[in-house]
Amino acid sequence: MIDMEFVSGLAIELDTRMVLLVIDGLGGLPDPKTGLTELETADTPNLDAIARESICGLSLPIARGITPGSGPAHLALFGYDPVACNIGRGALAATGAGIDLGSEDVAARVNFCTVEDGKVVDRRAGRIPTEINARLCDKLNAIKLPDGISATIAPEKDYRAALVFGGPDLSDRLADTDPQRAGLPPLPCEPLEGSGKEAEYTAGIVNGYILEAARVLAGEKPANMILLRGFAKLPHLPPMTELYKMRAVGIASYPMYRALAKLVGMDLVHAGDPFIEKADALAGAWADYDYFYVHHKPTDSSGEDGDFARKVKAIEEVDAQMPRILELEPEVLVVTGDHSTPAIMKSHSWHPLPLLLRSSWERRDVVSSFGETACAAGGLGMFESRELMPMMLANAMRLDKFGA
Amino acid sequence: MIDMEFVSGLAIELDTRMVLLVIDGLGGLPDPKTGLTELETADTPNLDAIARESICGLSLPIARGITPGSGPAHLALFGYDPVACNIGRGALAATGAGIDLGSEDVAARVNFCTVEDGKVVDRRAGRIPTEINARLCDKLNAIKLPDGISATIAPEKDYRAALVFGGPDLSDRLADTDPQRAGLPPLPCEPLEGSGKEAEYTAGIVNGYILEAARVLAGEKPANMILLRGFAKLPHLPPMTELYKMRAVGIASYPMYRALAKLVGMDLVHAGDPFIEKADALAGAWADYDYFYVHHKPTDSSGEDGDFARKVKAIEEVDAQMPRILELEPEVLVVTGDHSTPAIMKSHSWHPLPLLLRSSWERRDVVSSFGETACAAGGLGMFESRELMPMMLANAMRLDKFGA
Repeated sequence: MIDMEFVSGLAIELDTRMVLLVIDGLGGLPDPKTGLTELETADTPNLDAIARESICGLSLPIARGITPGSGPAHLALFGYDPVACNIGRGALAATGAGIDLGSEDVAARVNFCTVEDGKVVDRRAGRIPTEINARLCDKLNAIKLPDGISATIAPEKDYRAALVFGGPDLSDRLADTDPQRAGLPPLPCEPLEGSGKEAEYTAGIVNGYILEAARVLAGEKPANMILLRGFAKLPHLPPMTELYKMRAVGIASYPMYRALAKLVGMDLVHAGDPFIEKADALAGAWADYDYFYVHHKPTDSSGEDGDFARKVKAIEEVDAQMPRILELEPEVLVVTGDHSTPAIMKSHSWHPLPLLLRSSWERRDVVSSFGETACAAGGLGMFESRELMPMMLANAMRLDKFGA
Repeated sequence: MIDMEFVSGLAIELDTRMVLLVIDGLGGLPDPKTGLTELETADTPNLDAIARESICGLSLPIARGITPGSGPAHLALFGYDPVACNIGRGALAATGAGIDLGSEDVAARVNFCTVEDGKVVDRRAGRIPTEINARLCDKLNAIKLPDGISATIAPEKDYRAALVFGGPDLSDRLADTDPQRAGLPPLPCEPLEGSGKEAEYTAGIVNGYILEAARVLAGEKPANMILLRGFAKLPHLPPMTELYKMRAVGIASYPMYRALAKLVGMDLVHAGDPFIEKADALAGAWADYDYFYVHHKPTDSSGEDGDFARKVKAIEEVDAQMPRILELEPEVLVVTGDHSTPAIMKSHSWHPLPLLLRSSWERRDVVSSFGETACAAGGLGMFESRELMPMMLANAMRLDKFGA
């Protein structure tokens, strides 16, 4: 497969606009009663009409059978090799939480949790609201560590936060302290196998911090402990703005997606969860950018909650705004998701995603509605998500010919 | 494409069962009179019903246009890169014949043949039965070689045997002595181009052995000579049982397939050629394993013989047992072949294979019968056989999420 540098070498500037609308967790599985997926159940007259004048297909986030997290799934959509460029959860979370991560810092994702008699009884501390999370982070930021080591914790959303350790000789080769199931005690932080002295040293610092955190949170209810996972430093990614000679903006509300957009060099525009705010923000930013990444989260959240009907509604919410997006007359419009989150699985899954690509320069196909089964017969066939970027650039007339 | 190590890193243990049913040489070409392939001609009510509740597709053993031997075709199904992990035919044959192959030994596949006036008149010596083969091997095992070199020959099946040379500094970079066509003399064993001194030395030893063998077999009829091909040492393959954290068993009767299963770390259960014995063995092993490789050979043999009708019957023999396999309630059932063996070609071919994957976690597609043309419209599309393993693991819920 061609790589980003190859595509980058062909990229040219042009006054054309591309919209990538990511309906998070869009792909689904059929409701056994109806045989229809969430998207197929949803009333989507606008997306169906767009599908009829688009070329459609199925995008495979990583590879067949592989269930991706949001990080690699998005990087693939942005044209990066999602395996080679994997960003650790901690680094993503920290960037999303607004912590300016230095290249040597080690970040971890934090869950506030509830511990009773030494065992985790709720890994999400009753899903405490972000405001309580923020107050607890303030308390924890008073913790002092020895040896010129700093620790900064910042709230993400609900019960989630990001924690960053700064100082010399830190390693991110550390195992999670989250036991992944209620009923088990939190794990001590351990260096990964074969990770060497720096990891041992860092694990000691992390365990010291956790001890202090347990002391600071001892009187709290329900959030009286923290679980850490996804220890990671920041990888170096070439910015897509430079690679593809374009001005790119991310329109997203949830910290992780804002972090992803920022990591690949996009500017950010804030817009709340109701999708109408995203459409407003898109229109507002229209004059200033070439590439617009618009992210809609509620489809994924409802899928993870196993709420089929709410996922259907979240899709319909997007559909209602499609005419406004079309009014902007983007040269290229892609509607897809980053990965599937079938409500009946209550989790991300490996299934490929329906995708439509609307431009003046693609052939039409037989697809007459926007859905998993329909798109399986689409003209684009099934392809890896990372192949989308050159297709978008091509349709925006932003790629030179290869070879003479 | 992702590699085995990547998939291995995501694999988890779980009490779920996967069945890979390999109908050898399943893929075919249409009978010109009916326009239907062997599989499409066969009366397969059970496979058709399963196809309707499965997701289907076409699996490509190696790559478009490439006709595989059974070795690489199977390795691909087991998740290995069939090009990088190619096992020489000789090494396979020797393992299948029960010879414990050392890492420095060189093995070759043997055909007993008939030579008249210095020319091969029958490359298969009238398909002598295995018992005669075994008697001839006993005679040949009396041959003494100089310089601390050992030679061991053991019967495979019918006219086929395996021959293993042991000793220091042996090379497997040798050309076949089988002229591939009747009417030509056996070829002397020659080192492959650019293969160096050890190959020259080994060729000398092999030619010495062939001379002795011709002397030993001089009075025999029809098997008065041997042809050698597929010189090979054993490659080192990581066992799939370790890679994917599962207990795996091969249920096969033919030596090569047993050898393949053993080489990738499976236990073996013996079961005869009538497919009902394979189904019995599967049920018998059900409690003890997670991954069941079941092999049916008669489809390939009849295809190679150009016997369209017999291949049809061999397919129907499998179909009859499908209800028993379903009764075991595997979480994942895959039915496919290793490669195509169209009866009208009397040989392996490059054509992709019909495949069905039945699990609770796949989308349904439009395929309503199990056949080449129907599966071409399946929801899995066309994919390389080596991509099957992560799909099976995913549907058995045995793969963790990649990335955060």
